[in-house]
Amino acid sequence: MKNTFGNSIALTLFGESHGAMIGAVLDGLAPSIAVDEDFIRSQLSKRRPAGKISTARREADEFQIVSGVFEGRTTGTPLTILIPNTAQHSKDYSATRSLARPGHADYTAYAKYHGCEDYRGGGHFSGRVTAALVAAGAILLSALKQKGITVGTHILSCAGVSDTPFGDLSAELEKLNTLDFAVLDADRGEQMKAAIEAAAAEGDSVGGVLETAVLGVPAGVGEPWFDTVEGVLSHALFSVPAIKGVQFGDAFEMVNGRGSEYNDQFYISENEIKTVTNHNGGVNGGITNGMPITFRCAVKPTPSIFKAQETVDFMKGESSLLELKGRHDPAIIHRARVVVDSVTALAVADLLAQRFGTDWLGE
Amino acid sequence: MKNTFGNSIALTLFGESHGAMIGAVLDGLAPSIAVDEDFIRSQLSKRRPAGKISTARREADEFQIVSGVFEGRTTGTPLTILIPNTAQHSKDYSATRSLARPGHADYTAYAKYHGCEDYRGGGHFSGRVTAALVAAGAILLSALKQKGITVGTHILSCAGVSDTPFGDLSAELEKLNTLDFAVLDADRGEQMKAAIEAAAAEGDSVGGVLETAVLGVPAGVGEPWFDTVEGVLSHALFSVPAIKGVQFGDAFEMVNGRGSEYNDQFYISENEIKTVTNHNGGVNGGITNGMPITFRCAVKPTPSIFKAQETVDFMKGESSLLELKGRHDPAIIHRARVVVDSVTALAVADLLAQRFGTDWLGE
Amino acid sequence: MKNTFGNSIALTLFGESHGAMIGAVLDGLAPSIAVDEDFIRSQLSKRRPAGKISTARREADEFQIVSGVFEGRTTGTPLTILIPNTAQHSKDYSATRSLARPGHADYTAYAKYHGCEDYRGGGHFSGRVTAALVAAGAILLSALKQKGITVGTHILSCAGVSDTPFGDLSAELEKLNTLDFAVLDADRGEQMKAAIEAAAAEGDSVGGVLETAVLGVPAGVGEPWFDTVEGVLSHALFSVPAIKGVQFGDAFEMVNGRGSEYNDQFYISENEIKTVTNHNGGVNGGITNGMPITFRCAVKPTPSIFKAQETVDFMKGESSLLELKGRHDPAIIHRARVVVDSVTALAVADLLAQRFGTDWLGE
Amino acid sequence: MKNTFGNSIALTLFGESHGAMIGAVLDGLAPSIAVDEDFIRSQLSKRRPAGKISTARREADEFQIVSGVFEGRTTGTPLTILIPNTAQHSKDYSATRSLARPGHADYTAYAKYHGCEDYRGGGHFSGRVTAALVAAGAILLSALKQKGITVGTHILSCAGVSDTPFGDLSAELEKLNTLDFAVLDADRGEQMKAAIEAAAAEGDSVGGVLETAVLGVPAGVGEPWFDTVEGVLSHALFSVPAIKGVQFGDAFEMVNGRGSEYNDQFYISENEIKTVTNHNGGVNGGITNGMPITFRCAVKPTPSIFKAQETVDFMKGESSLLELKGRHDPAIIHRARVVVDSVTALAVADLLAQRFGTDWLGE
Repeated sequence: MKNTFGNSIALTLFGESHGAMIGAVLDGLAPSIAVDEDFIRSQLSKRRPAGKISTARREADEFQIVSGVFEGRTTGTPLTILIPNTAQHSKDYSATRSLARPGHADYTAYAKYHGCEDYRGGGHFSGRVTAALVAAGAILLSALKQKGITVGTHILSCAGVSDTPFGDLSAELEKLNTLDFAVLDADRGEQMKAAIEAAAAEGDSVGGVLETAVLGVPAGVGEPWFDTVEGVLSHALFSVPAIKGVQFGDAFEMVNGRGSEYNDQFYISENEIKTVTNHNGGVNGGITNGMPITFRCAVKPTPSIFKAQETVDFMKGESSLLELKGRHDPAIIHRARVVVDSVTALAVADLLAQRFGTDWLGE
Repeated sequence: MKNTFGNSIALTLFGESHGAMIGAVLDGLAPSIAVDEDFIRSQLSKRRPAGKISTARREADEFQIVSGVFEGRTTGTPLTILIPNTAQHSKDYSATRSLARPGHADYTAYAKYHGCEDYRGGGHFSGRVTAALVAAGAILLSALKQKGITVGTHILSCAGVSDTPFGDLSAELEKLNTLDFAVLDADRGEQMKAAIEAAAAEGDSVGGVLETAVLGVPAGVGEPWFDTVEGVLSHALFSVPAIKGVQFGDAFEMVNGRGSEYNDQFYISENEIKTVTNHNGGVNGGITNGMPITFRCAVKPTPSIFKAQETVDFMKGESSLLELKGRHDPAIIHRARVVVDSVTALAVADLLAQRFGTDWLGE
Repeated sequence: MKNTFGNSIALTLFGESHGAMIGAVLDGLAPSIAVDEDFIRSQLSKRRPAGKISTARREADEFQIVSGVFEGRTTGTPLTILIPNTAQHSKDYSATRSLARPGHADYTAYAKYHGCEDYRGGGHFSGRVTAALVAAGAILLSALKQKGITVGTHILSCAGVSDTPFGDLSAELEKLNTLDFAVLDADRGEQMKAAIEAAAAEGDSVGGVLETAVLGVPAGVGEPWFDTVEGVLSHALFSVPAIKGVQFGDAFEMVNGRGSEYNDQFYISENEIKTVTNHNGGVNGGITNGMPITFRCAVKPTPSIFKAQETVDFMKGESSLLELKGRHDPAIIHRARVVVDSVTALAVADLLAQRFGTDWLGE
Repeated sequence: MKNTFGNSIALTLFGESHGAMIGAVLDGLAPSIAVDEDFIRSQLSKRRPAGKISTARREADEFQIVSGVFEGRTTGTPLTILIPNTAQHSKDYSATRSLARPGHADYTAYAKYHGCEDYRGGGHFSGRVTAALVAAGAILLSALKQKGITVGTHILSCAGVSDTPFGDLSAELEKLNTLDFAVLDADRGEQMKAAIEAAAAEGDSVGGVLETAVLGVPAGVGEPWFDTVEGVLSHALFSVPAIKGVQFGDAFEMVNGRGSEYNDQFYISENEIKTVTNHNGGVNGGITNGMPITFRCAVKPTPSIFKAQETVDFMKGESSLLELKGRHDPAIIHRARVVVDSVTALAVADLLAQRFGTDWLGE
């Protein structure tokens, strides 16, 4: 249903880049979940990193929880988070409003909303809306952690530089969740940053691949048809701006191999059923098998670049040339990562709540 | 909601491989849509091809439409299709029921259903259930065609052999939809078949990539958050057995490139706004831009192979060796293709019905 | 969503009076629930009573469960029940198809479905479709009973004759569920039947009030806004043909009284919190308080009567006179009662599954 | 889904009586709908009338629309309304928090939320939350009016005094929508107020019946099973605090009559199909027939009274006596009326959007 995701635990997003505020309503939470505002702040800061490779608006992302929390814990009623917009540029967007920025949603918003959309700064399509998503996701990530479920993501590749693949997941996720630029190998991270800066110097942008793991989800969660773990997760993940592809396990590698290589054979370890490999990303037949859920998201190069581009003025119906000014991120993959963790937490919590009930997430 | 997909147009699947029948209920259809039973039969036959590379059950897939159609047209009430199971093997499955076939859902079904699942022949997880999906999809594909919307898929690669990439989509989709083995280049198709047979000769299996295009969807369909075109389509696509990855446009290629290469620049052609390239697969900001919607699905190698595999007996909790007997497909990609077309039709029809109303699909 | 009800446990109905069959898909059931076909049969027979006051089609309501049950228990996958239509009259309905029967859905179906509806015998609007609902409801009623939850309904009044009000609910519900004509006072029941026959003798029909109680639902189920217990139950109840009003507790009596009379004061009995009276029908603020959930449904007089009625031919757009022939029930309230029990079980099971998870209903 | 109502047009409510604010998110609105803040204010003032018979918090209900509106019109993205809580009493609620007020949700909230609920002033159950519902409803009422659809409600009876029944609906609804105390006969209204004051003088409270009519909905809206017009409307209406019964047309009168009296016979007037009477409230078989949709809601006496009541302390598990202090409304029916109009607009708009698409409501 449009701007709401989830059946048992549901998140609704609202707000425009240059409106008064953005926000989120999170419904279906169990009562009694501790709400850690410091953790929310730290997650928001991951979405808003400093440094040469990012040019995010310099705003504090001061959030306010205005409902659903009482004496530091969830009440079980809808939890609403508001984040005021304080740093909007006062510039006049109307001059360029009908010049479709390639790779952006200007033209599609116009086509969908008949020209009534708030076009300033991307409006409701702005990446800024993900701040509300991240704040809500922080609450879910905390709650899942209490239940022994951990989510973590690293930049598997960016601008042609690859990070070390996942290994000892438990320790790695813990470490990743302390980092602003989430790589397992810090040297590779520096190389990525350098490559991002090189692209930026040319007025260009880069993309990459995020790899995520979820630990601790028991076997038997998900549905065989439609509400498969892959289907529910991907549904949520494609809302993260710039994500254009999602693969579970080693999907796009398996396509060239054989069953004998990629079937994950089972074994028993300390009375637990495990698989020797995890090419299927912890999901068989749409349902978790108890192994880590793993997936990779393709993040396209940021569409905002400084090079001149051909475009059209969709209100005049004529060709035009576009040269963007101002500040634009040459890469967003390092910032998208915490958004991926957040929607992952939402999808996983919802799947669990459907099987075990909404009370389950409480303490 | 579990085994149902869609908000305005909703499909519910039911049935087990070795039960009396499988079936589907399609609700939310406009009245007056012509139901072409010959087309349904031809779609079902694509899912059930003959020849050396497939070993599908030799059953007729005789379907019966038992509700929702009157005098050859949809009534607007739920349309139910039943397909009896006539060729179940009478063999005793109970002996091997707790030996988890690697890559299959035996163990996850057990974990989810507490051992109450119908384990015979894959039960509700069986690819057989897709026959009902294909029959329902055929009705939607016909209805969309009346509205100028065409869906088509080819095998972009299989067992390491690549097909020609898409070119003149309109002609290609028309041709593809007449083929049982859907490739643009027939010679490459023969090479694929040879490679499949080679794997089969070794008791092994192969996978591949399906590429799909949807023509004729107007600009402005989809939602910015959550019900993005990519999110809704991928949600449905991951129900197709063996699909483990979905990418829109050139997602996993774009990750290594730059914005200047992959932004799809706009131009005007005969008063229509188009993009020069279509790396974004016809979707910007989650919403259609009027260009063809294109995506690729990773189909993993069929998990049923004849090589011996390590596994566990999940009821006894002990290790075991598994050697499958009987007939198993060394590849299912050529059969999965019509299932992909079917779920694509479902997702697209639902997105359109939400914006334009359920009446819209009627005549 | 149209012909589907429920979030966690969902029922989809399909079929037309004169099609091949009617049926239901029940999804979200926990695995392991025993399916008692004899109980289903006995519930179906309550919907299809013999005797002078009913003229139901003389068909066996032979049902077949074709999915979702294995070795006598639910599997957890969608459970599908089919009931063939065997006794359709072969008469030609086309002559009278556009004469709107007053109080029936002929004209509204035409307006909704643009004339494509299967108009024979009421089509999808036929009370016959409730047979599938009753069969599905029987499975839920059995499952709820295992959890200590009982549903029962009596005819509070019919044709101006009143039954004894509810007293010792536990014993009364048990007794009611053995009866075909569900009254607490058998003499009053005979008077009702006599009054029905008197109306029938005049070619006329009667209505009445059904009163339902649900025992054993714990305190704390339901939602404060929208998915209130009253809202969810009434949503389902208004699907029962001829029900036009629903009141919880003593709603339409309380409107003339005062708070001091109708507030249900609390007390403690054997460590359980109870209310002295139950004017609110076991629900405060949309949420169960642990007392019996009670409500009454207004069943309008059956619209099919033999007296001449003014109507229109909605295809010709002209006035007409209608005289119905054939067999028609002078009352359906005694048959509607088991349908009320069935939708009540559906709504209650769904509310419980949302809070406690879909596994909860299993054994 | 919990605190959200609607499929195509969805309203989410949040907030607690003594939190920072309450609010609503309205999603699925067409773009281009004019948002008239003065009308919203006037609707809010109907919920908050002055005078001796009401003791509402004296707060301004200053609302702020923080998303989804641009240059005075809806954008098509989620519209969020915030209403700060400014007049909360600073009194200490903790002393009485576990004394269940009879007829209120104190105990049920405790049972549902495990004691984590914000218990101050009714929390999320407070009638105050309806202010957000009324503000959102005002936007829908305006939009429907542009489409020729009018909603209006009068107090059919209160404290034993009856208003004139509906007659010339078109003129009456127009007049009612200008009144704060919505009666057709002003003298009867004065008698009602006197009766309310009399009850108040005794420390007691009264209830009544609201009667609503909706004009202009075309024939053919609604669904035969589950999403009947009656089911969808009642689902929403039972969220209005104190409503315990809903009947369409003359439901609870028809139960004692005969088919020949209550079948609404059809005729043709100026090429339109109408019914002579409207005992069925404009709905046949769950679907609108083009006549006014009419229904009545039973509003129970306000549970807050000043007389001493028996109750329990649900945390201590012991009996107690409760004597409420402060200001409490002796009647809320005159204030509930605008809430009824608001949820009616929501349900009707959603039903229409499903058939005609979300774009339909735009201009």
